[in-house]
Amino acid sequence: MAMQFLSDNAAAVHPAVWDALRSADAAQPPYDNDDLSLELDSAFGALFERSCAVLWVATGTAANCLALATMVPPHGGVICHREAHIETDECGAPGFYTHGAKLILAEGEGAKLTPASIDAAIAAIRKDVHQVQPHAVSVTQASEYGRAYQPAEMAKIAASAAQHGLKLHVDGARFANAVAFLGCTPWEACHGASALSFGCVKNGAMSAEALVFFDLELADLARLRRKRAGHLQSKGRFLAAQILAMLDNDLWLTNARAANAAAQELAVVASGRLIHPVQANELFLATSAPERERLRAQGFSFYDWGEGAARLITSWNTDPAHSAALAQAIRAL
Amino acid sequence: MAMQFLSDNAAAVHPAVWDALRSADAAQPPYDNDDLSLELDSAFGALFERSCAVLWVATGTAANCLALATMVPPHGGVICHREAHIETDECGAPGFYTHGAKLILAEGEGAKLTPASIDAAIAAIRKDVHQVQPHAVSVTQASEYGRAYQPAEMAKIAASAAQHGLKLHVDGARFANAVAFLGCTPWEACHGASALSFGCVKNGAMSAEALVFFDLELADLARLRRKRAGHLQSKGRFLAAQILAMLDNDLWLTNARAANAAAQELAVVASGRLIHPVQANELFLATSAPERERLRAQGFSFYDWGEGAARLITSWNTDPAHSAALAQAIRAL
Amino acid sequence: MAMQFLSDNAAAVHPAVWDALRSADAAQPPYDNDDLSLELDSAFGALFERSCAVLWVATGTAANCLALATMVPPHGGVICHREAHIETDECGAPGFYTHGAKLILAEGEGAKLTPASIDAAIAAIRKDVHQVQPHAVSVTQASEYGRAYQPAEMAKIAASAAQHGLKLHVDGARFANAVAFLGCTPWEACHGASALSFGCVKNGAMSAEALVFFDLELADLARLRRKRAGHLQSKGRFLAAQILAMLDNDLWLTNARAANAAAQELAVVASGRLIHPVQANELFLATSAPERERLRAQGFSFYDWGEGAARLITSWNTDPAHSAALAQAIRAL
Amino acid sequence: MAMQFLSDNAAAVHPAVWDALRSADAAQPPYDNDDLSLELDSAFGALFERSCAVLWVATGTAANCLALATMVPPHGGVICHREAHIETDECGAPGFYTHGAKLILAEGEGAKLTPASIDAAIAAIRKDVHQVQPHAVSVTQASEYGRAYQPAEMAKIAASAAQHGLKLHVDGARFANAVAFLGCTPWEACHGASALSFGCVKNGAMSAEALVFFDLELADLARLRRKRAGHLQSKGRFLAAQILAMLDNDLWLTNARAANAAAQELAVVASGRLIHPVQANELFLATSAPERERLRAQGFSFYDWGEGAARLITSWNTDPAHSAALAQAIRAL
Repeated sequence: MAMQFLSDNAAAVHPAVWDALRSADAAQPPYDNDDLSLELDSAFGALFERSCAVLWVATGTAANCLALATMVPPHGGVICHREAHIETDECGAPGFYTHGAKLILAEGEGAKLTPASIDAAIAAIRKDVHQVQPHAVSVTQASEYGRAYQPAEMAKIAASAAQHGLKLHVDGARFANAVAFLGCTPWEACHGASALSFGCVKNGAMSAEALVFFDLELADLARLRRKRAGHLQSKGRFLAAQILAMLDNDLWLTNARAANAAAQELAVVASGRLIHPVQANELFLATSAPERERLRAQGFSFYDWGEGAARLITSWNTDPAHSAALAQAIRAL
Repeated sequence: MAMQFLSDNAAAVHPAVWDALRSADAAQPPYDNDDLSLELDSAFGALFERSCAVLWVATGTAANCLALATMVPPHGGVICHREAHIETDECGAPGFYTHGAKLILAEGEGAKLTPASIDAAIAAIRKDVHQVQPHAVSVTQASEYGRAYQPAEMAKIAASAAQHGLKLHVDGARFANAVAFLGCTPWEACHGASALSFGCVKNGAMSAEALVFFDLELADLARLRRKRAGHLQSKGRFLAAQILAMLDNDLWLTNARAANAAAQELAVVASGRLIHPVQANELFLATSAPERERLRAQGFSFYDWGEGAARLITSWNTDPAHSAALAQAIRAL
Repeated sequence: MAMQFLSDNAAAVHPAVWDALRSADAAQPPYDNDDLSLELDSAFGALFERSCAVLWVATGTAANCLALATMVPPHGGVICHREAHIETDECGAPGFYTHGAKLILAEGEGAKLTPASIDAAIAAIRKDVHQVQPHAVSVTQASEYGRAYQPAEMAKIAASAAQHGLKLHVDGARFANAVAFLGCTPWEACHGASALSFGCVKNGAMSAEALVFFDLELADLARLRRKRAGHLQSKGRFLAAQILAMLDNDLWLTNARAANAAAQELAVVASGRLIHPVQANELFLATSAPERERLRAQGFSFYDWGEGAARLITSWNTDPAHSAALAQAIRAL
Repeated sequence: MAMQFLSDNAAAVHPAVWDALRSADAAQPPYDNDDLSLELDSAFGALFERSCAVLWVATGTAANCLALATMVPPHGGVICHREAHIETDECGAPGFYTHGAKLILAEGEGAKLTPASIDAAIAAIRKDVHQVQPHAVSVTQASEYGRAYQPAEMAKIAASAAQHGLKLHVDGARFANAVAFLGCTPWEACHGASALSFGCVKNGAMSAEALVFFDLELADLARLRRKRAGHLQSKGRFLAAQILAMLDNDLWLTNARAANAAAQELAVVASGRLIHPVQANELFLATSAPERERLRAQGFSFYDWGEGAARLITSWNTDPAHSAALAQAIRAL
């Protein structure tokens, strides 16, 4: 059996989540009318210290795209990074959910947008009916390369978006890892967002993500769109239960800290090979094909990242023995 | 605590499903590359005695609409009953998934289509570019009024669809209840279908429906569309596990028989009030508002169906004490 | 050569329109930045005695569907008559332009909605996320059966729509015929509309319809959607020229009066056979198949309307000799 | 009055087109059932020396996007140049017509794709359900920078597309200018295309483009989609008439040669400033802002192209006095 560093997206379910699932089994009103679903708004309100309207959905793609569909008309556009998950890994789901809105691709180191790159993307667009006009900005916290936006960076991006009249969406598939790294408040890590895809599945849940709206009017649209997309599960209590379990006792942060710590342990020994600074639970290591071959031969499982790199991801439950072994193997390359 | 006859869609999860979920927790390749997901095709192949390609999804709406999206182009139409779930209760999801294809509404007693009603719907359409041309027929087995299509009826509908060059979709949210009632083979109950939404959630599962393609080419399209709709869960093994647990030892039939038996027990005492013959686990009882008030006062929970009727639904785990009490209460009306 | 009573939609172009086309040939800024296009808002403002924002498009289907797309979100619905052109004869164009919004079909004699039929359609919809919620009402003035809404009827429908928070769209493919019949002001004939598809093609133009917005904010959306639909012609001056020619000296009314008069001449002799009162330029005559055969044998061209009727349409340029001949032929049946 | 070098898209209508329009006025069957529309297939069949199915539409955007909609499913992609008109200047119309398919952007000098750039775009796409898979290639002949694909280049691109199982679309808004420059047969200039948007409006027509299908099955889809997009005009004979007039006596080539000649006259004097070789009727001249100011002061009208260039376009009816004056003004800069 391989030692898994492929992805956090298939890791085991946390025991506390299992417990919450079992406790949710008693028959309840269907859809999102059960007690657990009704508790989400206040639970996230307390976490973010502001009013929230929260919908559960089964996947990050659904969360991201439902959020965008409330912000952008079919004839509009969303500014995002060229390597954003919504652009590269969702099989066109944003185009589906928004009915053909355009992803307007912008640049930035480490798959992070900057106010300057947002401005550059906007400046390239003529203000006429021939070109698609932007309506929103989407950033990923932490980014697709495991890079976190500092609170000050988020604030500047939020200000830049607001100045151009654009809504802000935060893809937080690994939001927990970012907050754990940044040591800031949750709100500081997504400052100014109208909606946040608050990831749970990669962090110990089974099948639930929280779509958190800070712009409450958008949530009503999302509720209709969720049903219309076949994402309104009748036994929704089981999704709410997972999410509440993640918030309870800050399990989301505890799990993220464990994953981040495992990543840092590897980062230390791999510092000479790091393509990106390690700020979450992902490592991109400059490695030759034979080197990667050698690691795999020792039982480590991970993805190639182009010709010259390996992508390694740790999880909330990465076995310390596995990371210690991998650290040693990297050192020995 | 009310005695629940509102719906089967929020009932508890069957113990065997829980066991299967727990057993699926070991880390696995993500999405649908795990061993359990890979087992679905052959498991359903054995059940239906023909080649199948099976995708899990979280909801019946997603199953129905993904299926339709593979059969009908955006400029085409789907013939379905005026009271079909896809028309009345999916918030326009068919329009979303098919990109605006039209539901062409047809008639039929008990929310069941007939070859004649299909022919009539087709005959009303001019064969030109000004009118939407049909590409598929969708029927619900058992129907929205708990009416089952007999094998001979299914065969005739399939023949009628084939004759007009239309694909056939079967919405089987309560397919198990229909098969349990009919005592036929699973294939006889959906004879000629290109795709079947094989319902599990109403029958003891938590969050998984099986979308079964008998027309195997359509499955490849559905795989792309599922991802694009945000329905490709990364821990898909948990959906596959639920579905396999339903098939194991014919749990799907055992559960459906239990629900049907509870419904029959009520049907016997309510025979004078039945608006539809009871062929699955749904009862529609002619009742006055005061009568329904009286039932509710005794702790029974159910939906009104228009002004003069009550809809009562039994589940795999309907408490025999509850149905006995309800039977007595109905008799006493 | 047949005597044409098939449709007004292929009639010749009026000489004044030809003159206007020729006069518009001088090179101009492209799209809708030319002097003629810029004149449309004020020309219609004068006609309707209120602020208007006007876009030219090539077809009535485009006008109708662009209008609806500004009023109804993809997850919403439009209440219209079961026999409305948008439902029966646009190949699903409303579904295309609105991205899958639903046409919610209502009843009414002569293909005319009433406040009561609108209320009934609304009352049948549960206010939850499972059913498609209406956002607009669309009526056809004159209706698909050549029936005009009286000013008082329009006012009541507008009030009913407003009360339910719905926008009002008027399909005016034969708006001129309705106004000519009603003898009211143009605004009275579409009272309360947010947008009117003001038809010209059936009334002497070549290829231009005016989409008139009374709700000015919607026009900006329509401008983007028009481009996105490939309807922003670069030599738009030729469309504006046609429309202005129709307004000039009330040509639109003069032409409509001519068509209506021809229809009335036939209505007099056919009064015993009229299925609908003749209030515009369409006649529906109860006729047997052999009778229709006899008319055709005499050189008259028209459509069958089901098994037992003929549809006859007059045009701005129906030859008086042809209508006299037809009147005689009908009398002789 | 400025001397116009802004665009060819608003130029006057050619006298022969006017004549054809007038001749088409006689009442005819509506839509595309008139004699002129029925003549299009054979007229283009003769021109391209192969079977064609031809639809008229009002704009190049409609032609391009209808063509793409027949080739690419909503979940698929189209490879095109980063500066293709469909990407930069159609307000997202491809996303509208294809229901959200993705434009996969590729590189190439002069806005021309190459087999290598197509291969590179394909190689970057993983063959899984997470990434959008290409279904078609779209090239512009002549390109957005007035660059023509040589027959050998077209043949290689067609071969590359075919090898990957992709359909080929040619945006021929200025196809006439390309063929006039290349001196090849029309088919050689779009070799291997499944569909060609054959531009007329920029070349002397008023409001008609020909969408030419060489893959005949696609045309039937396009006919439905055209209606559904509101592009099936009822007096379609006027569009057919324009197109036939363009083909008659090779007017399309005559007009294109005139425009190209005017451009070459300017190219000669501007050779030191040419950013792209002049192969059609567009010139991109390296010029400073003050230089452009000086040209404008002399009465020349044109667009800036970024900070350091001017875009000048000649037309079929560019006044020789104007081009002579402009040539002199450029020489004098």
